[in-house]
Amino acid sequence: MVEPYVFSLGAVKREAGNLCFWNQEIFPFEIARSFWITEVPAGEKRGVHAHYSDEQITICLQGKVTVELEDLAKRKYQFVLDDPAEALYLPAMVWSSFTFDANSVLLVLSNKPFSEADYIRNKVDFEKLQNGS
Amino acid sequence: MVEPYVFSLGAVKREAGNLCFWNQEIFPFEIARSFWITEVPAGEKRGVHAHYSDEQITICLQGKVTVELEDLAKRKYQFVLDDPAEALYLPAMVWSSFTFDANSVLLVLSNKPFSEADYIRNKVDFEKLQNGS
Repeated sequence: MVEPYVFSLGAVKREAGNLCFWNQEIFPFEIARSFWITEVPAGEKRGVHAHYSDEQITICLQGKVTVELEDLAKRKYQFVLDDPAEALYLPAMVWSSFTFDANSVLLVLSNKPFSEADYIRNKVDFEKLQNGS
Repeated sequence: MVEPYVFSLGAVKREAGNLCFWNQEIFPFEIARSFWITEVPAGEKRGVHAHYSDEQITICLQGKVTVELEDLAKRKYQFVLDDPAEALYLPAMVWSSFTFDANSVLLVLSNKPFSEADYIRNKVDFEKLQNGS
C-alpha cells in the first residue's frame, strides 16, 4: 500500500516574494483537474472524505493547513502544510480531513476528472472497506 | 491578434469557504506547467516581461492583483483580479506587469514547460518588436 508523503517543489524565494512551481517530471501523475479552497473560517475542517481512485497533490499556498489521514490498514498520519514549496501526495483510499488556519489557501491537483461516484463521503462506508467487507 | 480576456471558472461558494476549479474543457490549452506567487510585499510589481510563445492563465486565489498589459499593436489593458473563480487569459507577446495587494496569491497555468529563451525581459526589445523591427 502506497503511503502519503511530502515532497519539495521548485522555489525561488526573494524579498519581492516567493515563486514556487511544479515540473511534470517530479510529479507522480499527470494532472487532469485542479481546484483551490479559499476563505475558510479559521478552525473549519474541509475534505472529510476518501476517494476510490483519485490521487491528489495538495499544497498550502498561504497560511497553514493541518491534514489528518487514515488509510485502509487503519494507519493514521498527520501533516502540517505551511510552505508553498512543499507538496503532500495523497494516495487513493485514504480518509482525509483538512483543518484550516485563518486566511489559508489550499491548492489541489488530481489525476482524474471530477466524478461524484469516486467519493466515499460516509465514514461508516470507509470503515467497512477497512474491515474488508 | 488574440486579445486577453477574463472568463469564469467553476465555483462552490459556501459559509465554510470557497472551492473553485478548472475543467480542461473550458481551458484554451493543455497545462504544461504551473507556478504560484506568494508573500509579495504590498504594492510590489511582479512579471514585467513578455513571452514569445507561452500563453498563460492567471488567477488571483486570495487578495487582489492589478494586471497591466500592452500588446504588439501597443494596445493597453488593465484587469483587476480579486475573485478566485475568475481567470485571465494572457496570449503570447504581451508585455505584462502584476501589482500585488497585501497577502495576495497568484496562480499561473501555462501551455509550455519553462524555457528562459521564451522570455523577453527588456522593454526596449519588446518595443522593437512593436515597431516591427
